Amino acid sequence: MAPEMLPPGSVIGMLGGGQLGRMMALSAARLGLTVHVYCPDPESPAFEVAKAHTIAAYDDEAALAAFAGRCDVVTYEFENVPARAAEVIAERTLLRPGALALATSQDRLVEKTFLRTAGAEVAAFAPIDGAADIDAAIAVTGLPAIVKTRRFGYDGKGQRKVDSRAALVAAVAELGADLILEALVPFAVEVSAIVVRGADGAAAVYDIGENSHANHILKETRVPARIGTDTAAAAAALGRRIADALDYVGVLGVELFVVRDGGGERLIVNEIAPRVHNSGHWTEDGAVTSQFENHLRAIAGWPIGSVEMLAPTVMENLIGAEADAWARITADPRARLHLYGKAESRPGRKMGHVNRI
Amino acid sequence: MAPEMLPPGSVIGMLGGGQLGRMMALSAARLGLTVHVYCPDPESPAFEVAKAHTIAAYDDEAALAAFAGRCDVVTYEFENVPARAAEVIAERTLLRPGALALATSQDRLVEKTFLRTAGAEVAAFAPIDGAADIDAAIAVTGLPAIVKTRRFGYDGKGQRKVDSRAALVAAVAELGADLILEALVPFAVEVSAIVVRGADGAAAVYDIGENSHANHILKETRVPARIGTDTAAAAAALGRRIADALDYVGVLGVELFVVRDGGGERLIVNEIAPRVHNSGHWTEDGAVTSQFENHLRAIAGWPIGSVEMLAPTVMENLIGAEADAWARITADPRARLHLYGKAESRPGRKMGHVNRI
Repeated sequence: MAPEMLPPGSVIGMLGGGQLGRMMALSAARLGLTVHVYCPDPESPAFEVAKAHTIAAYDDEAALAAFAGRCDVVTYEFENVPARAAEVIAERTLLRPGALALATSQDRLVEKTFLRTAGAEVAAFAPIDGAADIDAAIAVTGLPAIVKTRRFGYDGKGQRKVDSRAALVAAVAELGADLILEALVPFAVEVSAIVVRGADGAAAVYDIGENSHANHILKETRVPARIGTDTAAAAAALGRRIADALDYVGVLGVELFVVRDGGGERLIVNEIAPRVHNSGHWTEDGAVTSQFENHLRAIAGWPIGSVEMLAPTVMENLIGAEADAWARITADPRARLHLYGKAESRPGRKMGHVNRI
Repeated sequence: MAPEMLPPGSVIGMLGGGQLGRMMALSAARLGLTVHVYCPDPESPAFEVAKAHTIAAYDDEAALAAFAGRCDVVTYEFENVPARAAEVIAERTLLRPGALALATSQDRLVEKTFLRTAGAEVAAFAPIDGAADIDAAIAVTGLPAIVKTRRFGYDGKGQRKVDSRAALVAAVAELGADLILEALVPFAVEVSAIVVRGADGAAAVYDIGENSHANHILKETRVPARIGTDTAAAAAALGRRIADALDYVGVLGVELFVVRDGGGERLIVNEIAPRVHNSGHWTEDGAVTSQFENHLRAIAGWPIGSVEMLAPTVMENLIGAEADAWARITADPRARLHLYGKAESRPGRKMGHVNRI
């Protein structure tokens, strides 16, 4: 049976009111869908482009229940939605992507185990729950390696590169329990597969993007990635396989390392994000259908739109004071400026991005 | 001196909360500009995508003054803004496009006189203020002709085609005073020039679109128009000349008739609209910069963005129940659906549009 299509006017609930929520809300409006944003921060950038908003904590079950009761489907802009919040919502309305995607991506150990089961190569890894696990973990990953918190890490937070046993001991003492040690991957390029999968199981993958980072924050995505055609096709196939394995509905970001050895290219999945992804922002101007619209289409049960690339595109993030260059950017008639309406510019804060076609 | 550029976070005031205001608000949000919509209708489609709104009448001077006091620039989505409202606003903040454009386009007699002065050919016309003017007017225009109210006509409302003196007498009795009689133009094609002119006077014109109507409402715009290259260039030049003559800031819609005689093509300006225009909706998906974004850029004092066409595009309006076909439209992966979030579908009501590239 074809999944139900939510009609225009349906209410899309959005957990999180940052720039991703804001861009999804803008896409929803274009499709005649109504948006209700739920976020504890009263200054959320998404509030001003949504019909309704709730300011409440993610553990406020009464507020969550009331919110869910007003929404035809609920989605989110970040993977760290508490499991209990997801449960409260899923008891009352559709939650898309579903609880499995959340649970899998919230915990690096669960995620890596899942990815391996789904047939993806991942970096060698081992859990560290305390000092007693250190030697066994090093035996799996070798050194240097990266120790990370299993949960709540992002943009390089909650992780340390360690090149000796002593450094690992110190890092474990600092980061606490529930850690994972991962082998360092000597990658040539980091790429992203942005996958969209509909409620009917039909999936599509955008052209693979090539990412560069500065200070652990995405700085630029270039599409198409400068990798082999076969590698790009393999990355897309891998993205699709992961989405299928999660019975995923919506847009899924898959970050992969490309390792070059012996003249060939090999793919290692770094992590997945069950949401629209920064490395997919190029699709707003460079693809027939943006990742934001396709996420909305998928969670509303609509057919997904064409992911075809219109032209090679470079997306540049504007971090902190870089957004002060807005006037210069507007003078380039082909630069497509996107600003998130954040009042305060702080170092490391994503203020906007520019697509150049 | 270069005009001042309003920084991101500036407040754009919008008179009118319909679909044009809504689409402008969505473009504003993408640029990090904040929107305050002013509209008497509490169910305005633009409210839900704007940070602030005021529900008040266009003759409520206190409300207008308070609104203007909160905005860095005020614009509008319809040309029938009362002169007094424009005045109240212009005394307190920037009004763009300015009062001259409003006064000119609000009155068909003033408009046609202005257009002729600006060097544009227009249909023969004559004012009719009462029965006594009928014979003199017919002497100017011939018959058949079209009698129209000078003010507040749109989508074919307030006008009658007349093919005899008796029919004109009856129409004048019905429509009242302040009329204009216009010669019928035997046009082959109706086209639009969508012009954008910045605060610095720099202007650009999108590719000329070809319009077809059903029941006096725009049904389809096809770009590029199927007219001669020289004719298209002349239409663009005419649009630019009209914008210059008005010292215009923003997007201006210019509707033109193409008359074919003696193997050549001749342009007759039908009317101008000092706002984003339905026949420019194709630019959202078919041009580098949409008319909505370019209107915002212009009124904010920013450089205008590229008007380059990405690919030939057909825009189809969804009128009344036609929007019920949304599900079918979403199944075409290349159809770009735009819905306006109107709760109630009524015959003749514009509910959305589709761009096909």
